[in-house]
Amino acid sequence: MIKVSVMYPGGEGKIFDMDYYTQRHVPMVGALLGDSVKGASVEKGLGSAAPGSTAPFTTCGHLYFESMEAFQNSFGPNSGQIMADIPNFTNIEPVVQIAEVVI
Amino acid sequence: MIKVSVMYPGGEGKIFDMDYYTQRHVPMVGALLGDSVKGASVEKGLGSAAPGSTAPFTTCGHLYFESMEAFQNSFGPNSGQIMADIPNFTNIEPVVQIAEVVI
Repeated sequence: MIKVSVMYPGGEGKIFDMDYYTQRHVPMVGALLGDSVKGASVEKGLGSAAPGSTAPFTTCGHLYFESMEAFQNSFGPNSGQIMADIPNFTNIEPVVQIAEVVI
Repeated sequence: MIKVSVMYPGGEGKIFDMDYYTQRHVPMVGALLGDSVKGASVEKGLGSAAPGSTAPFTTCGHLYFESMEAFQNSFGPNSGQIMADIPNFTNIEPVVQIAEVVI
């Protein structure tokens, strides 16, 4: 299984509209990518290891695909539309991690 | 649900023993934390957004807990033993993200 994580680092001057993200962006991505998406999750950062510390990422979104090919075939044709929506909810440049689920 | 992610950034000179991690470290953490752990996953980084690019994190491990309190109560008394095992499989200082699962 392939997991694609889009992680938004927090920090001074960074904004993130969680309502838009969960109510419009995530459903739009789901509709565009369709059945190739085998799972999805969203998390809101609360903290880091030290008590009272800030979370490295204010928000993380994850999508699961059966294979790298399945991800590329579904995401490729829709990447323009998906990327164009990002400025509607944040000014953060996300960190993207593509990974193989081992456990 | 609370998700605790321990993410190991890759890079020059960084080493990570995936066999030790999956066969010894993760089971040890599971045994120490017991029933408070509601789920666990491990991913191996493959790449980032641009084709051929390096994954930001070489490995990510995630644990799920019912609440922040459940995490703190189970992790706190075992943190010393868990942290002491890290040099046995890597020289990377992990990034820790504690987050609330929203979707």
